[in-house]
This record gives sequence, C-alpha cells and structure tokens, in this order.
Amino acid sequence: MPDFKFNIFARDKESYARAGEIITPQGIIKTPAFIPVGTKASVKSLNRRQLEEIGVQCFFVNTYHLYLQPGEESVKKLGGLHQFINWQKPLMTDSGGFQIFSQARNNKFGGVKAKVGEEETLCRIDEEGVSFKSFKDGSTHRFTPEKSIEIQKKLEADIILAFDECTYYPATHEYAKKAMERTHQWAQRCLKIPLGPKQSLYGIVQGSTFKDLREESAEFIASLPFQGLAIGGVSVGESKKQMVKVLDWVVPLLPERKPRHLLGVGEIDDIFQLAERGIDSFDCVMPTRLGRMGQLLTKDPLKKKFSFQITKSIYKEDKRPIEEECGCYTCQNHSRAYLNHLFRSNELLAYTLATYHNLWFVERLMEEIRTSITKGTFLKLKKEWLNN
Amino acid sequence: MPDFKFNIFARDKESYARAGEIITPQGIIKTPAFIPVGTKASVKSLNRRQLEEIGVQCFFVNTYHLYLQPGEESVKKLGGLHQFINWQKPLMTDSGGFQIFSQARNNKFGGVKAKVGEEETLCRIDEEGVSFKSFKDGSTHRFTPEKSIEIQKKLEADIILAFDECTYYPATHEYAKKAMERTHQWAQRCLKIPLGPKQSLYGIVQGSTFKDLREESAEFIASLPFQGLAIGGVSVGESKKQMVKVLDWVVPLLPERKPRHLLGVGEIDDIFQLAERGIDSFDCVMPTRLGRMGQLLTKDPLKKKFSFQITKSIYKEDKRPIEEECGCYTCQNHSRAYLNHLFRSNELLAYTLATYHNLWFVERLMEEIRTSITKGTFLKLKKEWLNN
Repeated sequence: MPDFKFNIFARDKESYARAGEIITPQGIIKTPAFIPVGTKASVKSLNRRQLEEIGVQCFFVNTYHLYLQPGEESVKKLGGLHQFINWQKPLMTDSGGFQIFSQARNNKFGGVKAKVGEEETLCRIDEEGVSFKSFKDGSTHRFTPEKSIEIQKKLEADIILAFDECTYYPATHEYAKKAMERTHQWAQRCLKIPLGPKQSLYGIVQGSTFKDLREESAEFIASLPFQGLAIGGVSVGESKKQMVKVLDWVVPLLPERKPRHLLGVGEIDDIFQLAERGIDSFDCVMPTRLGRMGQLLTKDPLKKKFSFQITKSIYKEDKRPIEEECGCYTCQNHSRAYLNHLFRSNELLAYTLATYHNLWFVERLMEEIRTSITKGTFLKLKKEWLNN
Repeated sequence: MPDFKFNIFARDKESYARAGEIITPQGIIKTPAFIPVGTKASVKSLNRRQLEEIGVQCFFVNTYHLYLQPGEESVKKLGGLHQFINWQKPLMTDSGGFQIFSQARNNKFGGVKAKVGEEETLCRIDEEGVSFKSFKDGSTHRFTPEKSIEIQKKLEADIILAFDECTYYPATHEYAKKAMERTHQWAQRCLKIPLGPKQSLYGIVQGSTFKDLREESAEFIASLPFQGLAIGGVSVGESKKQMVKVLDWVVPLLPERKPRHLLGVGEIDDIFQLAERGIDSFDCVMPTRLGRMGQLLTKDPLKKKFSFQITKSIYKEDKRPIEEECGCYTCQNHSRAYLNHLFRSNELLAYTLATYHNLWFVERLMEEIRTSITKGTFLKLKKEWLNN
C-alpha cells in the first residue's frame, strides 16, 4: 500500500496528543481530523462547494445504506463513490456491521429473531457472518467479512473498515468476549482479500466496557497488518467517562506509527478528550444532526455550553449572527432572527445554513487543536474551551 | 415616485412582445422577467449566493405568510425584508388576499363560513374587508385594503400589490361582477395610503372569465395612478386557452408606459404566450415546486415536453447531467444517477440541486426571450421551443 502514509509532525509533551497527516491517493487529511458523516453519499443539505469552503477533508459514507440504495454495483458502474458524488478528496466507508446490528434491532419487519448480546434483534449472527432484514423492504440479506470488503471495494472509498461485531451496551463479559473473538477472526478474514489499488483497511478494536477484553483486542488488532486502527463500540450507550477509560486502556497498546480512528464520537468536549489521548481522526453525526434540529454550535466556556437552540423566542428579533466572530457563510450573511424564522417556517434553507455553521465551527476548532499541538499549547487550549 | 421607472427598449413587430427594464431603488429588473416565489422570505432551498449566480433579479414574498410568521412588526424592527433576508435586489409582495381566500377555503379549523363565489369558505368578505382564520392556529384575523398596505409598508418590498378579491373558478357572472366592483373600490382605497419612500404600487385587474368584466376592470384599473398593472385570477382553475383569452382582452386596454405583471402563471409554454401578449413580469412557483418533486426542466421541442421525472429507474445509472449543454452548478457537477439516488434517499441536497437547475433553466430562457425581442426574432424562438 505505497500510496497510504501517516506522518506525525508534532507530539504534545504533556499528553498523548499528536498532529500529523494521513496521505491517501485522493489527498491529505491533516490530523487530528474530524470526519463528517454523509450516510447516503451526501453530507446532508450541503453541496461539494460548501464542503470545500468549510474545509472538510474527508467524509464518512455508510456501506449498509449504499448497499441497499443505489447498490454497490451501480456505484461501481458509475465510477466509484468519488465520481458518483463528484468528491475528489478522501472518503471513508464503514463495514456495514454497525448499521446492520442497530437497524435490525429496530426493524419494523417480522422475521428471524436471535440473541445479540442481551437483546432480541432481527438479525442472526453466526461465526460466518450476519443475516438480516432490510429496513427498506424487509428483504433478507447476508453480510460476511468477505462480502463487506467486496462491497467496499466496489464503492472505492480510500479508507475502509474491517467487518466487526459491535455489541450492545450493556453486554455481559461472556457475550462481549464472544463478540470480540468473532471480530478478531473476521479481521483476519478481511485482511486476506486484496483491496482496490488505492484503498487502505483499518482494523477495529472491540471489547465493550471490559478492561481485559479491550486490552486483548487492542493487542490483537495492533498485531495485524492493517494500515490504520479504529476503536469501535465506544459510542453505543456508554458515558463520556467510560469512553475516556476505554481510550486510556486501548491507545497505549496501539503502535505509534499507525493512524487511530475513533468511531462515532465527537461532541465538543469529547473532541478534546480524544485528541488528548492520541486519536487522529473521528467521525460523528453531531454537528450535522444538531444543525438540522436548530441546535447551533457556539463557544461559551463560562457556561460550559457549546450550543443554543435557535428556535427559542428570544432569538425572534435578534439581529446578531450566530457568533459575532464567525467567518462562515451563515454568520457573514444572516441573523439569528432570520434563522429563527426559517426554522419556525420549516424552510429547507434553515437546515443548510445551520449545518454549514456547525461544520465550520468544528473544522475551525480542529484547526485550532492541530495548531496548539504543534505549538505545545494543547492543554492550554483545552482549558480555555472546557474551563477546567 | 421618482425612483420607479419603466423603460421599453424594443418592441416585437409581429406581436405585443416588448423588452425593457423596471428600475427600482433596489435595482433593475430586465423584462420580460420571471419572478420566482419565496413564500416565507426564502426561495425554497437556495441561499442568496445561489440566487445571484442563477441571475434571479427579484423574488416574490407572500404577505399573508409573513404576517403570521414572524409578523410584519418583527420584520420592520429587523430593518425590513431586504435586511431581514439579506437580499439587496428588488422584492415584490402580494396583498395577502389570494392566500386568505385560498387557504381559508382549505382551513382545518371550524369557524365563520360564508359564501365566496359559489363556495363555502372559512372567511367572511364584506365591503370593508375580509375576516378569516389563521391556517397556523385558527385565530381570527381581519384584512382590509388599508391593513394590507400597512403590512406591506412594514415589510418594505419594492413593488407591492393592491388588495383585491380573487374569485374562485368557476364563478357566476353576478358574483364575478360583485367581486370586481369590490376590487375596484379597494384599489382606490389602497391608492390613498402614502407608501414607504422606496415603494411602488401595482393595481390588479380582475373579472374572472368574462370578457365584459375583464374589459371593464382593465379600463378602470388602467385609469388609476398605479405604477404598474397586474392581472389576477388567471391562475385559478382556468385552462391555458382561457389565460390567453383574458390576456387578449385585457392587455390592449392597458397603457403602454406601465409595466404589466401576470400573477401566478409561468409554465414553459405559458411564458411564450404571455411574453407574446406584452406581459413584462410574472411570478410562479412552477420551477421551484417541480424541482422539489424531482421534475427537472429540459428543452425537448420534438416531444413538446419541458421536464422529466428524475426518480424514474431509467436514470439510476445515467452518467449524463440533466442537460448536456446546461451551465448550472448542478449540471456542471452532478449526474442524473446521483440526483436519482439523492431523491430516492430523500436527501435534502436533492431539493437544492434540482431547484437550482430549474431556476437556472427559466432564467436562461428569459434571457433568450429578451434577446430575441431585441433582435426581432421572438416568434422564431417561440416556434423553436414550442414546435408550432
């Protein structure tokens, strides 16, 4: 995989934080990097030009959704995800596993019920793979590690993920161990498949909330020839304290030279915690989903709050932008009053303007974090933002 | 009203078509002009920059909607519509009447029922004005000519409309005459109110489908000191043939020197009919609403069709843009296949990309029409487009 490189430029002296770059054939991702989510091959409400203006370096597409619509064969015929979307920067896809487990659980269609952790769900897991029902039409499908990689090859994202089992929280130690072992076997199977010429594969550390399992998983996954290492299962039903614990167990066991991705985490306070613990990239729906709900990101260290709800009546005649100093299109052009009106009127423009601001906010924070690591002022910046 | 001027540059020798410009204090509108609709102070899904790129010269905001949310007092406190929206080009508002009559008819709330034309509705019309219930919360409101103008003054659009009664189709001659006479009285009352310093007022010709009433109304409204003249009631339940008839009756009775606006009409074939009959501007939800429904505008004279439905499965793997020669952002960046996917996935970006293309399509058509009038080739252009 000569096209994939990870360079570390600076390390914080007082923490595990590090600044660097992931080089992929489609472009460079400066780290630590926030990776917005574009579930169905679109970062909701924004076009390519807006994503580029905001400074989005890479975004995350969900394999499960694209497998169902339009189908990986169609994406392949259309030249792969980059051409399909017209996005010539890096892209990441997941294995599909997370969505299969979580969507099957909420599936409205009847069908196979099997134990997953402690819960009844509409998918059946065996050592070979997972059978599940589509959330779209109830049809039956089967994913295996081989199938997941084959689909991801057709999608042609630059960074792809091994097929894993993400257990629900809380899981028993017995079940979490079984799921972790299955994840390790699947990881080895994923590695046997030749990837697309420009693709890199990340392995996933699981182990739920158990120190011994997390350590075992970190050591095992780290021992395999993945290009990068992801940590999974941290976003599912756990507290922020537990996330920090898992990172404290896992990261010291991961090799320095490989990039580390944290799956599904990224609230503002989390971002400092994970950067401090040496995470290089992370994906999260937070800024985009909050935006569509009218929850706008702001920096307010005194109140330890990072957002406000624009639909509140106090903003009805507020002429100020979301943030006075913000350079984003939304803040440069529109008042809180107009946004309040657009949200109250269910106008589509509301979602675009709010998402634009929220992503801009997180991207500027990531720039600040990268600069602070280089300058040796990361913990100072963290204190300034988190007021502690 | 020294700031409002209408200049005619060119007249077609074979028809009533004319090309010119409406000069308002906020800017120039080249005519014939298409005026997109931004009902709630937003042309749905597009931001200011996109509207400017497309070449939108002016857009139409509905007084009734803004009266209910956020309220004209709030808009006034926020500096008027231009500042509220951040749109420094011309804007038009209607009187609120059309929405009151049509929304009251479909009102889900109980309340006053009264005859309007032949129909039972939830608003009561008397000689003074109209009482109606809000579609938002069922509360009771009253509009009079004076109230409509007062609201439109607070909104501060450049071109505003007199308060009229738009009768439903089909109406009896008796009722249509009564409604027309009321509209004429209301027109005179509207003219008595001093407007905002940068505003101009258009009168509205009514008279339903009756030649004698349309002629009477055209002559009466033309005799009043309005800055421009609008033709109403043409979009309500009438056929395209009837629209042409009404224009043929009315337009010859309107003075040459005043701009003429047609309310609520603007399908592609209509555009040629109304330009040919000397209409200078018209507003219509067609391109924006069709866009959100996945109906994309194209030029196909052989089939006499001007749109196709992008959600059809034949476009699933179609790599071409909507139109090969189109210069719009959507066509320059995205394939039919990606649009098909976005619509099938209910992605917000679908609505933006489709609306952008459809508005661009109509704005380019309007440019072609203006140029053809200047060059004396309007009827040739019409033939080329309509294939007849």
